[in-house]
Amino acid sequence: MAQINQNYLKLPGSYLFSEVNRRITAYAQAHPEAKTIRLSIGDVTRPLVPAVIQAMHSAVDEMATAEGFHGYGPEQGYEFLREAIAKADYQARGVAIQPNEIFVSDGAKSDCGNIGDIFGAKNIVAVCDPVYPVYVDTNAMAGLAGDYQEELGKWDRLVYMPCVEENGFAPVPPKEKVDLIYLCFPNNPTGAVASRQQLNAWVDYANRHDAVILYDSAYEAFISDPEIPHTIFEIEGAETCAIEFRSFSKTAGFTGTRCAYTVVPKALKREGASLNSLWNRRQTTKFNGVPYVIQRAAAAVYSPEGQKQVRKVIAYYQNNAQVIREGLQGAGLTVFGGINAPYIWLKTPKGVGSWEFFDELLEKAHVATTPGAGFGPSGEGYIRLTAFGDAAATLEAVERIKSALQQ
Amino acid sequence: MAQINQNYLKLPGSYLFSEVNRRITAYAQAHPEAKTIRLSIGDVTRPLVPAVIQAMHSAVDEMATAEGFHGYGPEQGYEFLREAIAKADYQARGVAIQPNEIFVSDGAKSDCGNIGDIFGAKNIVAVCDPVYPVYVDTNAMAGLAGDYQEELGKWDRLVYMPCVEENGFAPVPPKEKVDLIYLCFPNNPTGAVASRQQLNAWVDYANRHDAVILYDSAYEAFISDPEIPHTIFEIEGAETCAIEFRSFSKTAGFTGTRCAYTVVPKALKREGASLNSLWNRRQTTKFNGVPYVIQRAAAAVYSPEGQKQVRKVIAYYQNNAQVIREGLQGAGLTVFGGINAPYIWLKTPKGVGSWEFFDELLEKAHVATTPGAGFGPSGEGYIRLTAFGDAAATLEAVERIKSALQQ
Repeated sequence: MAQINQNYLKLPGSYLFSEVNRRITAYAQAHPEAKTIRLSIGDVTRPLVPAVIQAMHSAVDEMATAEGFHGYGPEQGYEFLREAIAKADYQARGVAIQPNEIFVSDGAKSDCGNIGDIFGAKNIVAVCDPVYPVYVDTNAMAGLAGDYQEELGKWDRLVYMPCVEENGFAPVPPKEKVDLIYLCFPNNPTGAVASRQQLNAWVDYANRHDAVILYDSAYEAFISDPEIPHTIFEIEGAETCAIEFRSFSKTAGFTGTRCAYTVVPKALKREGASLNSLWNRRQTTKFNGVPYVIQRAAAAVYSPEGQKQVRKVIAYYQNNAQVIREGLQGAGLTVFGGINAPYIWLKTPKGVGSWEFFDELLEKAHVATTPGAGFGPSGEGYIRLTAFGDAAATLEAVERIKSALQQ
Repeated sequence: MAQINQNYLKLPGSYLFSEVNRRITAYAQAHPEAKTIRLSIGDVTRPLVPAVIQAMHSAVDEMATAEGFHGYGPEQGYEFLREAIAKADYQARGVAIQPNEIFVSDGAKSDCGNIGDIFGAKNIVAVCDPVYPVYVDTNAMAGLAGDYQEELGKWDRLVYMPCVEENGFAPVPPKEKVDLIYLCFPNNPTGAVASRQQLNAWVDYANRHDAVILYDSAYEAFISDPEIPHTIFEIEGAETCAIEFRSFSKTAGFTGTRCAYTVVPKALKREGASLNSLWNRRQTTKFNGVPYVIQRAAAAVYSPEGQKQVRKVIAYYQNNAQVIREGLQGAGLTVFGGINAPYIWLKTPKGVGSWEFFDELLEKAHVATTPGAGFGPSGEGYIRLTAFGDAAATLEAVERIKSALQQ
C-alpha cells in the first residue's frame, strides 16, 4: 500500500495567503459594491519596464528561428545571466561571488522550499517569529518541525526567535545550538532590517557552531540606508556559513514572470561535503532551468537602461511605503518598517487581535491586509501592509483606514 | 552542526546526461575538426511554431501595461490553460479529467522529482530497467532507494523490472508487493509502447495493492498506432491509482520554454488522504506557478492553428525516427522503438558494451548517442538515438554510422 507523507497531515489549515485570499474573495462576493483595495499579498502592480519587454520580444523572435532557437539550457542558468548577477549584485559591492556559485531558478519560494532537500532530517531549525510561512511549512512537510501545538501556534521541534518591538524586530543568536537558521532582511513581514553588527553576530554564531544561515534577501532593492548590507556576503566569513536567496520578483516586478537565484558559495562545506555540489546535484536532477526568454528578460534588468527603469519603479513603491507609514502615523497609529522595506508592520490599536483587525479593515475600509498572527505567534497584534499597490489606490486606502478608525 | 542529506553522497558519479555531455565536449575540444552530430540528449531542434510565437509576443505586450500586467498567478496554473488541457488532452479522448485535477508546472522533470515529497519514506518503489535516471536518482536522494551496489549497478531497496527484448521492453507487474510504480510510455529510452491490455494489468495490480502508478507520458504525441493509449486515464480504474506527467517539451518544442503538467485525479486517495490535496499543498507551498507569457504560449498549442503547426513538427521528427530506424536496419543492425516514439533503441553489434560503442560512434562517426547502460543494467548492450535532430544532420549521422561500421 502506498503510504503518504504523514507530515502533510500535521499542517494546520491552508497556506496563509490562500486563506487571506479566500476571505477577501468571500467578502467581495457578499459585497459586490465594495471596491476592496488589496494591501495584502506582496504582489507588484507596475508593468515590466521597457528594457525587459524589449529583451523578451527579441528572445521570442530568436525562438522562432532554427538558428536562434534554444532548447534545454544549463540547469543552473545561462552564463550571460549568472555573470551579470555576479558582477552587478556582488562584485560591484566588493563581494567576490563567482558565476558558478549562482543558481538561477523560477523563484525564491521554490528555492527556499527545496533547499531542505540537501540537509539531513535531524537538523534543528531556527526561524524568526513572525516568519514567512514557507520556511516553517516546508520544514514541517519534511518532518523537521515536529508536531504542531495548536494552543501555542508553534511547532514543537522548531526554535522560534521572537522579533518584537523590544528587540527592534531583529533577533540575536539563540543560546541553544541550532543548525539551520532562516533569516530574512529586509524582513517579511515586519519590514525590519539588520545592521552590519547584527549580521556579524549571526555569521560568528554560524561559523562557531557549523550552522548554516539561509538568508532571504528578496527585498534588498528597497534598502535606502547606505549602512545596511544588501547581501549576507558583505559580512566577512559568510561564505563559509550562508546560502542566499534572491529574486527578480520585487526588484523588477517579476512576480508573474518568475526568475530568482540562489547563491551557494564554493567555500561552504558541511560534514566534508560541498553544499554547492549538493545543490548542483539537486538542481540538475530535479530541475531543468528557467525559460530562455525569461533569462533574457532578467539579464535586461542589469543593462544601464534596465537599471534606470527598475530603480524608478522601486522609487514608486518606496513612495507608497512612505504614504502608508506617514499616513497611519498621522492617524495616531504605531507603525514599523516601510523605510528600507516594502512592508509596513502596523500595531493594531488597543491590542485588538490580528484577524479581528483584518476583518475590521476589510469591512469598514474595504482594505485587505495580512494578519500578523498568520506569520507566527509574535505577529499577533500586528497586521502587514504592502507598498506594491497603485499609488492612487494606496493613498485612498490610507484615507479609508483613517476614516474607518475615526468612526 | 548542520548535517547534510547523506543520501546524496551515495549517488554514483554525476547525472547521466551531464556525463554524456562531458565526454562529447571533451572529444570536441580534442578534435575541433570533427563536426559531431548529437543524437544523444533528447533535445528538440525545430523552432517554436508561429502560433506560439504570436501568443508570446502578445502576452509580453500585455505585461508592458498596467491593465494587462500579470503578477502572481495561481500556483496550479491559469484556468485558461488548465481548461484547454482538460478539453484537448483528456475530454476529447473520452477521459473525464477536470481542470482542477491538472497542475501546470515548469517541467515533467521537476514534477517527477518532486512528487516524492507527498509520499512516505517506507514505500517500496518499482522502476523499469532501463529507466529515465530522474526516477531513480530522486528516490535515492530521498532515501527510498537504499544503498547503491556498484557491482550490480543497482540500488538495493528498489525493485527493478527488466525491460528486455524477450518481453518487448514492457514489464509485467511484479510478484512482490510494491507501492510506487514508475512507468513511462512511449518509453524513454527504449521507444517501446504499452498496449491497452498491458496497462489494464498495471491498473488492476495497483488498485488491488493500493499502489500508485507514476505515469510519464511525455512522449504521447509520437504515438501513431490508434490502438495505443495516449494517457493512463484511458484505462478504467486508473483514476483511483495513477498520477500522470505530461510536458510541452516534446509535443511543442518547449524544452527551453519550460511548461508541463501533472494530473492528480480527485478520486485518488491513500491512507484516507486525497493525493490531489497533498500535491496542491506541496505546489502552493513550494512553487509559484509558471510565467504568464509561457502559459499563454502553451495555450496557443491548443488553438486550431497551433495544433496544425505542432503536428507538422512532430511529423518532421517522426520522419527522422524512420530514417534512423530503417537506415540502421538496412546496415544489418537490430533496432527497436522509433515507431510510436522519438527514441530508437539500438542493440550494439557483437555484444559490445554500451559505453564502448558510444565511444566508437563518437570517434569513428562523430555521432553522439546515449549509452544504454547509463539507464540501468538491462540497458547494457544498447544505445539510445533520438529523432529530435535536424533532418539533414540525422540522415548524415545514419550514413556516417553505416560507413563507420563497415570499416
